[in-house]
Amino acid sequence: MAAKKNVVGGIKLDYTNMMSDAVGAKDGLTANQLKSGEKQAAGAFASVSAQRKAGKLPFMDLPYTMSAGPIEKYAAGARRKFENLVVLGIGGSALGMTALQTALNPAHYNLLDASKRRAPRLFVEDNVDPERIAAMLDLLDPKKTLFNVITKSGGTAETMSALMIARDMIVKKLGKSALKEHLVATTDIKQGNLRAIVDREGLSSFVVPDGVGGRFSVLTAVGLLPAAIVGIDIRGLLSGAAAMDKRCSSGSISSNPALAGAVLHFLMDTAKGKNIQVMMPYANALGGVADWFAQLWAESLGKKHSTDGRTVCAGQTPVKAIGATDQHSQLQLYMEGPADKAVTFMRVEKFRRTVKIPKVYADMPGLAYLAGRGMDELLNAEQKATELALAAARRPNCSIILPEINAGSVGQLLYMLEIQTAYAGALYGVNAFDQPGVESGKVSTYALMGRPGYEKQRAEIEKAAKAMKRRVV
Amino acid sequence: MAAKKNVVGGIKLDYTNMMSDAVGAKDGLTANQLKSGEKQAAGAFASVSAQRKAGKLPFMDLPYTMSAGPIEKYAAGARRKFENLVVLGIGGSALGMTALQTALNPAHYNLLDASKRRAPRLFVEDNVDPERIAAMLDLLDPKKTLFNVITKSGGTAETMSALMIARDMIVKKLGKSALKEHLVATTDIKQGNLRAIVDREGLSSFVVPDGVGGRFSVLTAVGLLPAAIVGIDIRGLLSGAAAMDKRCSSGSISSNPALAGAVLHFLMDTAKGKNIQVMMPYANALGGVADWFAQLWAESLGKKHSTDGRTVCAGQTPVKAIGATDQHSQLQLYMEGPADKAVTFMRVEKFRRTVKIPKVYADMPGLAYLAGRGMDELLNAEQKATELALAAARRPNCSIILPEINAGSVGQLLYMLEIQTAYAGALYGVNAFDQPGVESGKVSTYALMGRPGYEKQRAEIEKAAKAMKRRVV
Repeated sequence: MAAKKNVVGGIKLDYTNMMSDAVGAKDGLTANQLKSGEKQAAGAFASVSAQRKAGKLPFMDLPYTMSAGPIEKYAAGARRKFENLVVLGIGGSALGMTALQTALNPAHYNLLDASKRRAPRLFVEDNVDPERIAAMLDLLDPKKTLFNVITKSGGTAETMSALMIARDMIVKKLGKSALKEHLVATTDIKQGNLRAIVDREGLSSFVVPDGVGGRFSVLTAVGLLPAAIVGIDIRGLLSGAAAMDKRCSSGSISSNPALAGAVLHFLMDTAKGKNIQVMMPYANALGGVADWFAQLWAESLGKKHSTDGRTVCAGQTPVKAIGATDQHSQLQLYMEGPADKAVTFMRVEKFRRTVKIPKVYADMPGLAYLAGRGMDELLNAEQKATELALAAARRPNCSIILPEINAGSVGQLLYMLEIQTAYAGALYGVNAFDQPGVESGKVSTYALMGRPGYEKQRAEIEKAAKAMKRRVV
Repeated sequence: MAAKKNVVGGIKLDYTNMMSDAVGAKDGLTANQLKSGEKQAAGAFASVSAQRKAGKLPFMDLPYTMSAGPIEKYAAGARRKFENLVVLGIGGSALGMTALQTALNPAHYNLLDASKRRAPRLFVEDNVDPERIAAMLDLLDPKKTLFNVITKSGGTAETMSALMIARDMIVKKLGKSALKEHLVATTDIKQGNLRAIVDREGLSSFVVPDGVGGRFSVLTAVGLLPAAIVGIDIRGLLSGAAAMDKRCSSGSISSNPALAGAVLHFLMDTAKGKNIQVMMPYANALGGVADWFAQLWAESLGKKHSTDGRTVCAGQTPVKAIGATDQHSQLQLYMEGPADKAVTFMRVEKFRRTVKIPKVYADMPGLAYLAGRGMDELLNAEQKATELALAAARRPNCSIILPEINAGSVGQLLYMLEIQTAYAGALYGVNAFDQPGVESGKVSTYALMGRPGYEKQRAEIEKAAKAMKRRVV
């Protein structure tokens, strides 16, 4: 089990390179622009605070309302009993857990000896890819496997079909009585197919609280149950989030980092034409956070209509990059391509481990400067160098600085980005908590799969396909 | 070793949904616009063909100039001898191999029993992340490990420092005489630090041919050597590429799919304001291809200057998404956000394996339609549905259709995307084969790391940092 580390210090946001004195007035914010942004920010803060007070934003209260006890109790049993944990979930039911695992357990975790892991291997089955699912079924012995199926509505086709397959395997290999032991559900407290299945099969279950959308659910049982099973310190996550909540209790961007982040990116997009936000952690461990953020930012802000009914087609496109790796892939475009991006670096002040570059090949002029230095030093020098190079090329950027990666700092980070997104929703004037645009694709899937009740849509699709001139090379 | 499958059929590009009759004239191409694009395409084709004839594009001839024999011979020995293969490379020296591995070996490959793999586990160490490298060193027994270090110049700091660490481990644990057996280099035929090290230590080595840049090198020993070691059919890759070369021998977009792809995306960017191209394979196995393409497209086209010296700041930003997974993460933004994207789907007609959804919970109305259907059917229905939904929302998209994923079709695909990129360079009027924008970041890294000769730059950086007003929350 992970050490119960305390929050070691606060996350900082350095936005020096978003200002005009660093990158020029065309691409950077002048002091006056920032000042008028501050007023908008204060309005967004007031609006979010009012919604919270009215009980409409329960995700913001999770650091206080979630009790770790029942989750830890179930997790402790599962951790001892199983060799594999399979999360069946998609979108917000998968990305949060993946972010936690990548950040807080070692790289190559699933390849470690059981004695070193001291917890089950983790598989996140977040697709209906036929080849990958077949490979997973080959790999896992159901006797040693726990499936955690996660869907609030119980209607998610991808997750429910994976559940049907997992159930079948358990029943065939271990008998129906084994379902209770090998399946645990996280779903709505009373509604939907999955809750009905829980009742019918007598499964253990945890709750996705009302009013907490998938992409804001990492600090509920959705993220915390699988995290606890793989040995992550979930109390540390919650206390980190609580600490960040305190830091975000004012409407001033000089003390509330989430509010600063929200207004800076909002202005970059709407006033400076940066329709792309690159999130570029210099740490492989934070790659999962970048993927999780990509959903949070895209699905929350990518909206056709504003809350007052105007057509706005708002939203900034999140892009994930990893430093230093993507200096050798994407940086050329960021440096010289269109001025359509703001970059958010993530930088770690103190890594949990490092490796020294040995003093070999010291006679080779291109290598001698590396000998004797730490990999951590090199990685952070590359981050700083990239930041400077981008700023010199008038490409605005900011840095989220983590003192260290641990449960406390990751709890801070996730919570900060969640409320940053809520503030940004208020700034854009959109509803950050719905996703109306994915409905029509679902309807077409139902039609194409022949779901009863969708015959008319199917006929329409077929008719339109026939009428269309197809262009194929 | 992988079965030697033949190329089973050609890849197709369906661009119906990029046309105005599918998505409207604001976002789609009218017949007239396509016609004038055809003329530009013919010009780009002529320019690339002339460069090829002049011997300036050797990557295009790799399907004929690469001989598989020596690579296969070395690989056969290594495959029997080692339990682990570690690729030390970054950017183009890592992304190609990762794409091949993800596409052509089963998911969870490293977790399979050695008897099922029949080849070493693969680790691609493409960063200087101190925590990840430390975790790798813990995991691997050097006695059972082969390191393939890949850098054309021998000057890549990340790769060379990883090499220094690997060398130290081998020497300390196995003695200096073991270097020959446990290290194999892929580098320039005569120049650079790595070639000097090969000579000094008496290492086996393979060559990165002159004039083939990293991002166009997957079909050289850079990609083929590690691929052959993990059992991938490299002759199949080369013959797939050759087959695609033949299909791309005309300057007409109605028969040359790479040329069609180039001009369509060029027009989407420059005439329709789509500064983002999303590549969205509906197959986890093709996720690595999307990452590889992101480098290819970004680094080749993201250029400040045109070849005739104008300031253009060209380039379209590539974004990776995975279907169906990212329907639950990014699709909301693609459907309703700004009209700044063209989407390229990848779709597989016949998967290598599939799993049937069993007939359980047949009484539940939201689930019954899934029972008895294949996961492949569901995944492809979701792709089709997403394509239709995007087109209905006037979001242009196209689909690359693979008959199946195998060495032949992957060889076709990679080669097609490479020459599509070369054509696109000609259309944008930029040099698709250099990367001048990453130089200044390297200089700053040298300065920050205290490399001799960069004292002046270091002093400048320090002075500038002092002068700047820092903004930190």
